[in-house]
Amino acid sequence: MKRYIETNRNRFFEELFSLLRIPSVSAKAEHKPDMYFCAQRLCELLLEAGADSADIYETAGNPVVFGQKIIDPSLRTVLVYGHYDVQPAEPLEKWRTDPFEPVIAPDATGQDAIWARGANDDKGQLFMHIKAFEYLVSTGRLRHNVKFLFEGEEEIGSPSLPAWIKAHKKMLAADICLVSDTTMISEKVPSINCGMRGLSYLEVKVTGPNKDLHSGHYGGAVANPIQVLCEMISQLFDADGRVAVPGFYDKVVELSRADRRMLARAPFDLKEYKDFLGVRELRGEKGYTPLERTGIRPCLDVCGIWGGYTGEGAKTVLPSEAHAKISMRLVPNQLSSEITRLFAKHFKSIAPKYVKVEVTPCEGGDGFLIPIGSSAYKAASRAIAEVYGIEPVPARGGGSIAVLAEVQKILGIDPLLLGFGLERDTIHSPNESYLLSQLFRGMESIARFYDYW
Amino acid sequence: MKRYIETNRNRFFEELFSLLRIPSVSAKAEHKPDMYFCAQRLCELLLEAGADSADIYETAGNPVVFGQKIIDPSLRTVLVYGHYDVQPAEPLEKWRTDPFEPVIAPDATGQDAIWARGANDDKGQLFMHIKAFEYLVSTGRLRHNVKFLFEGEEEIGSPSLPAWIKAHKKMLAADICLVSDTTMISEKVPSINCGMRGLSYLEVKVTGPNKDLHSGHYGGAVANPIQVLCEMISQLFDADGRVAVPGFYDKVVELSRADRRMLARAPFDLKEYKDFLGVRELRGEKGYTPLERTGIRPCLDVCGIWGGYTGEGAKTVLPSEAHAKISMRLVPNQLSSEITRLFAKHFKSIAPKYVKVEVTPCEGGDGFLIPIGSSAYKAASRAIAEVYGIEPVPARGGGSIAVLAEVQKILGIDPLLLGFGLERDTIHSPNESYLLSQLFRGMESIARFYDYW
Repeated sequence: MKRYIETNRNRFFEELFSLLRIPSVSAKAEHKPDMYFCAQRLCELLLEAGADSADIYETAGNPVVFGQKIIDPSLRTVLVYGHYDVQPAEPLEKWRTDPFEPVIAPDATGQDAIWARGANDDKGQLFMHIKAFEYLVSTGRLRHNVKFLFEGEEEIGSPSLPAWIKAHKKMLAADICLVSDTTMISEKVPSINCGMRGLSYLEVKVTGPNKDLHSGHYGGAVANPIQVLCEMISQLFDADGRVAVPGFYDKVVELSRADRRMLARAPFDLKEYKDFLGVRELRGEKGYTPLERTGIRPCLDVCGIWGGYTGEGAKTVLPSEAHAKISMRLVPNQLSSEITRLFAKHFKSIAPKYVKVEVTPCEGGDGFLIPIGSSAYKAASRAIAEVYGIEPVPARGGGSIAVLAEVQKILGIDPLLLGFGLERDTIHSPNESYLLSQLFRGMESIARFYDYW
Repeated sequence: MKRYIETNRNRFFEELFSLLRIPSVSAKAEHKPDMYFCAQRLCELLLEAGADSADIYETAGNPVVFGQKIIDPSLRTVLVYGHYDVQPAEPLEKWRTDPFEPVIAPDATGQDAIWARGANDDKGQLFMHIKAFEYLVSTGRLRHNVKFLFEGEEEIGSPSLPAWIKAHKKMLAADICLVSDTTMISEKVPSINCGMRGLSYLEVKVTGPNKDLHSGHYGGAVANPIQVLCEMISQLFDADGRVAVPGFYDKVVELSRADRRMLARAPFDLKEYKDFLGVRELRGEKGYTPLERTGIRPCLDVCGIWGGYTGEGAKTVLPSEAHAKISMRLVPNQLSSEITRLFAKHFKSIAPKYVKVEVTPCEGGDGFLIPIGSSAYKAASRAIAEVYGIEPVPARGGGSIAVLAEVQKILGIDPLLLGFGLERDTIHSPNESYLLSQLFRGMESIARFYDYW
């Protein structure tokens, strides 16, 4: 497919950029029209690539795009999953270019990349599947039925998709679910994800006095909700760096020494890792390596906090409220619904009596594991090995694609995570980018996967 | 002066409203022009009220208004201090009316009040002085020289005023400094402030990784700066509710039992206090009453906190930075500059090695005490007693007017705090208001003060 890419390179950029220009931010209601624009554009791209049909389906939330090409019902069927919604671009002032006006420019190491929100996650990655499909169709090499399912709510936890999948089980029937929405360890150490963490995401609100107060008149006599929220958050970890929510680890499966040894084969350079992050020391659960802490162990992070006066200058206020957004990454067997309940109960239980505490669940999903002995895994491994010149290692991804556990459950098929993102892409952060080399090697690997499976 | 108020009531409202409509928010650079508009309007009002002169003076920051009427250099001179700048109005969504479009409407108890940012603090209160002066001039009763000094930077700690006062010492020479920028205990318990707390205000920044990270890919392995900031803030108090900054209390003067008994005579209804605030329990330094905690004891409050994603929905991010604004209210003898230094040193010392911490001083000022045996205090006490029908009690104010300690030092005169605000006015908060009854009784009390001093 290398030559096909070379010939069509500029058209590919134009097509991908047309998706990246649409600010399809699912977290913000104001972008609702953009979700439809983006879904419409995907239908066009699928049809142009050779799909028999491509349609927008309404859900309880943002629309789903479904397209397919059925060449022979007796052949194996691939279901491609991707999402066209993106994370909010904030903080905007930290972007070097407009997040919704993609540009191609070299990164710090001189490698050309596309810079835009969604360049990798997930518009760039789902685009690879459309182009690999186009190549197979246009060259007469397609030997599978292919179905595309693109949703618009992944970044907010796919609240509507499970019900929609249940309602369209037959239409979605397939033998494997291909997903490119993850990273590999590095360009030199390609890897295939064999598991993802689940997620529980909640918002907490601590209310002290019923109105903002003058900190001079009341300071010292009235509990400050920011202070209390900080004290409560500081109690969420024990001295060993473990999450101090009772029951949090009850269902976590301890990996065997052999399994841990296998995972430890993934290369990891502590100094390089710290240098990339600009930190002097790491922090995490006692008794586990950094890769284990992000791969096989659950964790808790405060993703956002706000309260009181946060503008310019010095406003002296003892505020009425303080807020935080808290995410917990879960490992297989931990149920998101149960962890959300345990957290809410615990957080309320540690609230001192001079404040009121509210906990609101925002989104969640379970983690899952993927069998690495399957023919699909082996085909993917062979394809990637040929394109990269190195056999990929199996790895456990720290992120979450909440809906994939549902796909596994409802459709009874395993996902295969062919992620070509790299940590350097800084998805979910300012200046998201995607290396052209990864974009093109991803397309090539995917096309070869169809050959070998 | 009662009849004069009745006759001129509507004109008074129009004049005060013309000040309140100008959004003279000193914390925000965008309001720079409004500072000049407001200063200009004050000059007009002073001249109309009978001043010989009223002019705008440039400072290193916002302009100062100075006006005066010298009837006989051998008579005693009153210097009136006030400030025309106001606190930011945020959060705007909590205002029931436009903060910069004043209206007269009854409060929850049916008493008419003016609703606007600055209705009390300090435009409403400084206006009382202009009108009392106008009354004395127009009725030929004035027996003092009167000077007015209105500054535009009180809410940001008066950074420019001390230098300006030093440069205009002779012009400002006076025998007393009248200030109406504080509250009294209640309408039924009028009080005169005999001391104010000082202030140290700082901003802190905790930096973890050098960019926002995907909380799935790094969560569990990298220190989260919000978590660390919360842990650091939670260490700022000890188990007895004392500020845990070493040296913080070193210079605090312990009041004698007799002094504490005298202060305890101020009426205080715990249930009413808690009900007004909507809290079940109070919190503060062990061994002191709520009034002592806000009057004679220093304290620390987090006035604002922010970090990570604070918008709508669920963004999973492990942020690079977390911030907080911290104010400390100081009692006499605690030096603001020293406390700021102690805090900065301590806060950096408790930073764990996986983050970087920056501390930026924002504003500060020392506290001060006022002698209650003076002839001016006695004249004010008599004036208020006549207007309210009850003798006012001496009280210690919890707030800070940073510049008054400087006035005391540079000009060598004592301030007299004739505050007619009430806690119900919720200055610095949404829906600031000022009761008409307090506005008018304030004017009357001030006019009588001139009679008795």
